Amino acid sequence: MNTRKLSHIIKVASGELPADIVIRNCRIVDPISQTISEGSIAVYGGFIVGIGDYHGEKEIDGEGRYAVSGFIDAHVHIESAMCTPEAYGEMVIPLGTTTVVADPHEIANVKGIDGLQFMINSARRSPLKAHFMAPSCVPAVDFENSGAVLDSESIESLLGEKSILGLGEMMNGPGVYGTQEQVLEKLSAAINAGKPIDGHAPGLSGKLLNAYRVGGITTDHECTTPEEVRARLKRGMYVLLRQGSAAQDLEKLLPAVTKANSRRCAFCSDDKHAGDILRHGHINHNVKIAVKAGVDVFSAIAMATINAAECYRLKNTGLIAPGYLADIVLFDDLENFDAQMVFINGQLVAQGGKALFPVSNRVDKAVTHSVNIAPVTEKILQVPLKTSQAKVISLHSHSLVTDCVTRTVAVKNGAFAFDSAVPVQKLVVVERHRATGKIGCALIENYGVTEGAVATTVAHDSHNLVVAGDNDRDILLALQELEHQGGGLTLVHRGKVVDTVALPIAGIMSDTSAFEVSKGVDHLTELAHNLLGINRNIDPFMSLSFLCLPVIPHIKLTPEGLFNVDSFSFTDCNG
Amino acid sequence: MNTRKLSHIIKVASGELPADIVIRNCRIVDPISQTISEGSIAVYGGFIVGIGDYHGEKEIDGEGRYAVSGFIDAHVHIESAMCTPEAYGEMVIPLGTTTVVADPHEIANVKGIDGLQFMINSARRSPLKAHFMAPSCVPAVDFENSGAVLDSESIESLLGEKSILGLGEMMNGPGVYGTQEQVLEKLSAAINAGKPIDGHAPGLSGKLLNAYRVGGITTDHECTTPEEVRARLKRGMYVLLRQGSAAQDLEKLLPAVTKANSRRCAFCSDDKHAGDILRHGHINHNVKIAVKAGVDVFSAIAMATINAAECYRLKNTGLIAPGYLADIVLFDDLENFDAQMVFINGQLVAQGGKALFPVSNRVDKAVTHSVNIAPVTEKILQVPLKTSQAKVISLHSHSLVTDCVTRTVAVKNGAFAFDSAVPVQKLVVVERHRATGKIGCALIENYGVTEGAVATTVAHDSHNLVVAGDNDRDILLALQELEHQGGGLTLVHRGKVVDTVALPIAGIMSDTSAFEVSKGVDHLTELAHNLLGINRNIDPFMSLSFLCLPVIPHIKLTPEGLFNVDSFSFTDCNG
Repeated sequence: MNTRKLSHIIKVASGELPADIVIRNCRIVDPISQTISEGSIAVYGGFIVGIGDYHGEKEIDGEGRYAVSGFIDAHVHIESAMCTPEAYGEMVIPLGTTTVVADPHEIANVKGIDGLQFMINSARRSPLKAHFMAPSCVPAVDFENSGAVLDSESIESLLGEKSILGLGEMMNGPGVYGTQEQVLEKLSAAINAGKPIDGHAPGLSGKLLNAYRVGGITTDHECTTPEEVRARLKRGMYVLLRQGSAAQDLEKLLPAVTKANSRRCAFCSDDKHAGDILRHGHINHNVKIAVKAGVDVFSAIAMATINAAECYRLKNTGLIAPGYLADIVLFDDLENFDAQMVFINGQLVAQGGKALFPVSNRVDKAVTHSVNIAPVTEKILQVPLKTSQAKVISLHSHSLVTDCVTRTVAVKNGAFAFDSAVPVQKLVVVERHRATGKIGCALIENYGVTEGAVATTVAHDSHNLVVAGDNDRDILLALQELEHQGGGLTLVHRGKVVDTVALPIAGIMSDTSAFEVSKGVDHLTELAHNLLGINRNIDPFMSLSFLCLPVIPHIKLTPEGLFNVDSFSFTDCNG
Repeated sequence: MNTRKLSHIIKVASGELPADIVIRNCRIVDPISQTISEGSIAVYGGFIVGIGDYHGEKEIDGEGRYAVSGFIDAHVHIESAMCTPEAYGEMVIPLGTTTVVADPHEIANVKGIDGLQFMINSARRSPLKAHFMAPSCVPAVDFENSGAVLDSESIESLLGEKSILGLGEMMNGPGVYGTQEQVLEKLSAAINAGKPIDGHAPGLSGKLLNAYRVGGITTDHECTTPEEVRARLKRGMYVLLRQGSAAQDLEKLLPAVTKANSRRCAFCSDDKHAGDILRHGHINHNVKIAVKAGVDVFSAIAMATINAAECYRLKNTGLIAPGYLADIVLFDDLENFDAQMVFINGQLVAQGGKALFPVSNRVDKAVTHSVNIAPVTEKILQVPLKTSQAKVISLHSHSLVTDCVTRTVAVKNGAFAFDSAVPVQKLVVVERHRATGKIGCALIENYGVTEGAVATTVAHDSHNLVVAGDNDRDILLALQELEHQGGGLTLVHRGKVVDTVALPIAGIMSDTSAFEVSKGVDHLTELAHNLLGINRNIDPFMSLSFLCLPVIPHIKLTPEGLFNVDSFSFTDCNG
């Protein structure tokens, strides 16, 4: 801020000079004072300079709408929407979100610092205010075949940059309370840089939660019970109440939220698909749920605005008051929270649900062509079995948790054989970053693929190539299709590729709009259920995405082989 | 934080290693969750590591007392207690204050950066956590004869230092909303350093308050009505509720404070004499008043702790929770707030109202010998008058505001003459920093000094030497006494110095304890009323201290002459 601009801002505030923009006839919601005042909001140089009788170069009629500070997603992996930050902005800004705190750990697992830089660059082309955390756990576990590794030196260097807000969610709880040196180095780097550290502590309690907390961790977004919320607030942490695609925790958590403790609560989406955001909303959905559940509207709005800003020390953000950045949303009511007009830094950027800014969706070569696999043959896909008793990964409806069950299957030449009488299919995970040839093959049930294969390169957290199918030919074809496309989601049926959503950016993001991604994924999902017979209680792609994440109970598959999460060790498929 | 210490802290939290100290059997007050839980607090390396079943090298019985996070004075001029930061710590820590945000603008007016450095050094010798703001208005107004000037370059350089928390109270409101370049340079420097700026905006409202606010100012401690509190909260500011010696605003302001908006309120003392602190308390007094007035105890405690910490971004401060610094106070009850035990960084530093640490009260030559005056004779003390009609500064009971009245006085040789029949005395202000010989002489009423003189070198904000008396001989003697002592407070009666409290540090602070200062000042005050006949509704020294501050209505005296605050111009004594 130079004195010339400061002087001009002050003169506009005092009424000596006209504002850039005055939004007249608003009902201004102040979640601190818990008041709604009628008035005009004057803006100059991106800042709100005053509420009152002001004149501006441009005057906009608020038509008596409620003016609320722009909503903040306190924790999001933008990549989960399978679109670029730019495209994400095009989708969420018209819903009233003006700021996100993003942890780009998905792309970092594929492309490391280059991926992070792509996200920052893409976000800069959008009015969306995206603040980035340095992903703390790339890869998620030591033995993961990710495309990149962010060691403690890289993290320290990232945290030294002004553009990096803090340290992203520390998923390695055992690394914290087990005081692993690399983990402590990352935590120390953030502590010494004076930057916040996001937590990830599902189920943690008592002394282990204390130990995790004193590691410098200041937030948690993984609560699934009111007790967990209370336990974290009592430890001086912020709780980020999540409403995502898979994890829809918000309503369950609200009984723990009071008018007093809500100052330490904020809202987040974490992982939310484009389709879910377009159908249900983004942070405005969290606010709507909270208000509907009986949270007073001021506390609900505070959680969507100023609380998140305070949590992440976002300057001049989160209130409609002089001196704050002019991120303003006009709503018709305080129940449905359908944004009618959205201003960022005083610029009208969305109206009636539509973005008013251009979107380039520019792609950078540094993040494309990320699917590099060694040649795969049907032979490599074999699952050796000593007997007909086999371990099978059993999927559950609407859940990411799997069970390990033993089933009697057909065996031919010492390996699993497909048998239409046995409802067990094959799951294959191929290392796809460095063409190491590492491949994991195992058996699943309850997925339900028939006469075909389903494949994706979105597979948490390392984003290897995962395929499920009931015959090796279609599995191979699905692999080849995604190799050819440079990543994406695909369906193969009876020897033919039925449809593909290409995700050329790191194999996890599209270069098209969120609307097109959503349409494409919806279409594929419908086909997966109708044509390939995937269990209707299971999301065909998301379920595959999480079958490779070796930190969710109870049994998962990695390119290194079948992994027992409970014993935290590899195993084979013999039952 | 290095990884070795972090590792140890985590291991203590997880119960693997013993704590340094465990305070057992406490009722722990959490103002965020608004709960009181029984338990033990474990401390390691200065941090709270957990609440629960812990063991420590040392275990202390809390005897069922309430454990509250250490109190924070959000805005204080330590110099007003007329003792060093070290001595101040000795006084306030046993009362439950563990942290202060100090604006050393009194000593800065006398000794500039040297004075500030002395304060920082003295505070470092105390367990008290004193954070210092860079004084923004030295001198208070351009034409003041202060001992030092802090221009915008000095301020920018100070704000670049890690030890400087922000920019101290911006008293020059007209300079802000009038966009004076030097003022804007100071504000910009703080904004660009990302540091908070304290406000001082008595009575400001509407667009001028907006203009002041957008100058980057984030707090105000000068509210005297609930409306002023609400107006500032609506502008996204913090309000610091003051209970000082002269300004006892707290109770009047509390009707504006709600459970929701209190998160943006904190407590301060601003200017509070040692005697008042010892008689009534420090921040514990604010808390007591608030609770007595019906503020819920959790909000009251939050205002004394976490809110102030958030306002000034004090790291890991303000809650009893793992990861926070172990600044803990044990109280018998939550009504009287008499601190029984006080811990700072986990060390027991006070018990039963007594400090448990040594106090050196070390003095630095850079801040002594500050009284430098040109020779003064009786002739110089004359007040020229054209007629017997004279302007007289009229003092009010219990107020710093003065009126300008016209009185008929005795005149001899074209100058004011003392006349026992006319209750008008003389007020003299001598520039005492650079021996410039500048001297202001004027007339006062309602002060009531008889057969003597009262003098002080504590005189806001420039701290020149001010004397009131009813004869020139005693006035001269009082001047000489304070010159000889290097500053202080003195009483002269019938040609003799009755008693003096020496304030050798910058002429405003003692090198003894706060207790001795308080005793000395109490004794002098008693003598002033009893022996010299000073009006009992007027504080003999504080009233003099403010008679030279040309920013308080309506008429004041500076070494440049009589000053009409309303017209903001100099005048003479002719009525």
